[in-house]
Amino acid sequence: MSILVAANFDADEWAAWWPALQAALPGEHLIRGRSEAPAEAIDVALVANPPLGALQGLPRLALIQSLWAGVDKLLADATVPAEVPLARMVDPAMNDAMAETALWAVLGLHRGTFAYAAQQRDRVWRQHPQRRADEIHVAVLGLGQMGRTAAQRLARNGYRVTGWSTRAMAVVEGITTAAGDAALAEVLASAHIVVNLLPLTPATRGIFGASTFAAMPAGASLVNLARGAHVVDTDLLAALDSGHLQHAVLDVFHSEPLPVEHPFWSHPNITVLPHVAAQTDPRSAAVIAARNVQALRQGQPLADRVDRRRGY
Amino acid sequence: MSILVAANFDADEWAAWWPALQAALPGEHLIRGRSEAPAEAIDVALVANPPLGALQGLPRLALIQSLWAGVDKLLADATVPAEVPLARMVDPAMNDAMAETALWAVLGLHRGTFAYAAQQRDRVWRQHPQRRADEIHVAVLGLGQMGRTAAQRLARNGYRVTGWSTRAMAVVEGITTAAGDAALAEVLASAHIVVNLLPLTPATRGIFGASTFAAMPAGASLVNLARGAHVVDTDLLAALDSGHLQHAVLDVFHSEPLPVEHPFWSHPNITVLPHVAAQTDPRSAAVIAARNVQALRQGQPLADRVDRRRGY
Repeated sequence: MSILVAANFDADEWAAWWPALQAALPGEHLIRGRSEAPAEAIDVALVANPPLGALQGLPRLALIQSLWAGVDKLLADATVPAEVPLARMVDPAMNDAMAETALWAVLGLHRGTFAYAAQQRDRVWRQHPQRRADEIHVAVLGLGQMGRTAAQRLARNGYRVTGWSTRAMAVVEGITTAAGDAALAEVLASAHIVVNLLPLTPATRGIFGASTFAAMPAGASLVNLARGAHVVDTDLLAALDSGHLQHAVLDVFHSEPLPVEHPFWSHPNITVLPHVAAQTDPRSAAVIAARNVQALRQGQPLADRVDRRRGY
Repeated sequence: MSILVAANFDADEWAAWWPALQAALPGEHLIRGRSEAPAEAIDVALVANPPLGALQGLPRLALIQSLWAGVDKLLADATVPAEVPLARMVDPAMNDAMAETALWAVLGLHRGTFAYAAQQRDRVWRQHPQRRADEIHVAVLGLGQMGRTAAQRLARNGYRVTGWSTRAMAVVEGITTAAGDAALAEVLASAHIVVNLLPLTPATRGIFGASTFAAMPAGASLVNLARGAHVVDTDLLAALDSGHLQHAVLDVFHSEPLPVEHPFWSHPNITVLPHVAAQTDPRSAAVIAARNVQALRQGQPLADRVDRRRGY
């Protein structure tokens, strides 16, 4: 059988991924194009933003393994066969990277470094009062692998952390948790910083709109590391421009790359990152993808299967 | 007896410090000016950049308690009586603040956020390859209270940390340590990021000059959180302009506020912070100062006495 790698990688990305996948899948026939093997010989697709229709007409396809953590685009692609098991990438190295980005953003908001960067541009020397980490309340929305890892990392660095998830869930060591729509307003009301790590689903799309911003206290900040479509851009701009929100750190956008004319680029209270909060590391991700291929071949349960109805 | 608070505080700082000191020293007679008590009634001076000569002619002065951690300016002030015991401020809250600033700077250098900030100004969407924290070697120079706290915080967040001190010293849990001039070149040679938390002494003044930068690998970065006089400014500019060093995060400068015409302000590879890496928190520092006042009054040993010969 053959394994199709269907990805919109550029040359540099192929140069990193191809040897990593070959090393992790010795003895497997890896192909990069449909023409390299008959359709009926392909039983696994490793995908990263696959070209539209790339997975159609593969009668023996038995596993679609995403190389990215988020699968919302795959679920929205009607050409991705819905009956084939789909697995997300859950890589501890990516969880750590996400936790680092969340911590960097929270430290920067807590310690005023975004304001100091603006001052540097104007050559202004002005010190702002400083609070202790345990005086900063951080709400982490989304308690999947990444949300839990980020929340615990923040707590271990001294912040008061509350984790919130859409559904009730188990205790996460070191942090307070809350769940469900009714609890959200209360969690937001006391948050100095809100870190978004929710999956993108019909229920969470546009969750960061005017009413959510109004539920956050004056001077609060948003760190969006999940999906651009979680945010209503015009509402965010209004909340920042009114002074109600202080700052937003955004790694993800409705359209990526962020269009050059988008107002986020030049807004003084928005920090734009080019979707780098947790880049997949081919070295570790290839090994994790290979484990699921092996599970498939040995008839064992697949890890990190997506519940298509739930959306993640 | 009276306690003289000799400080160059502005109105906001007095508004924070005065009630904190009064709360921490109940029953003590606190004064802000020499005219408020006879010279022979003053036995303690709490100082923060005291006006020149403020401590002269106090025959019963028995304790000079600094409200700042660094005492290099006090030791350089010939009007500060050399025979009176001098104590530094060692405040766990300041150690934590310093560790947070060090961690913020290291995360930013590791994750490329200073480069992404420059890209945002130019509306450039470009992702850079990402390394794991355990692939980043951080050298922390100076293993006093702040250096140790910062080094351990970095190690707990996954970085490979080597701590270096001028003199041989005890093991610091969680990090590799080295000491003495001979070991410095080796520590620098493998460092991706050097964090300076050395005390300023004749031996460390100008330590970050051309030869130290040459000992660091190409692409390394400097985080100076100690004193501006540790750095030879022209050598730092040369090392950055040649591309040998990648970036510098500077919280301290030869002259503060950093003069408006100084080239650091506008250098694309320098991040300027206005001496805020670890601001003293009046709430906790007043309590720590009060403990030493109490020790003096009760004839007990003073904490955190400065060794004037050693310089810290």
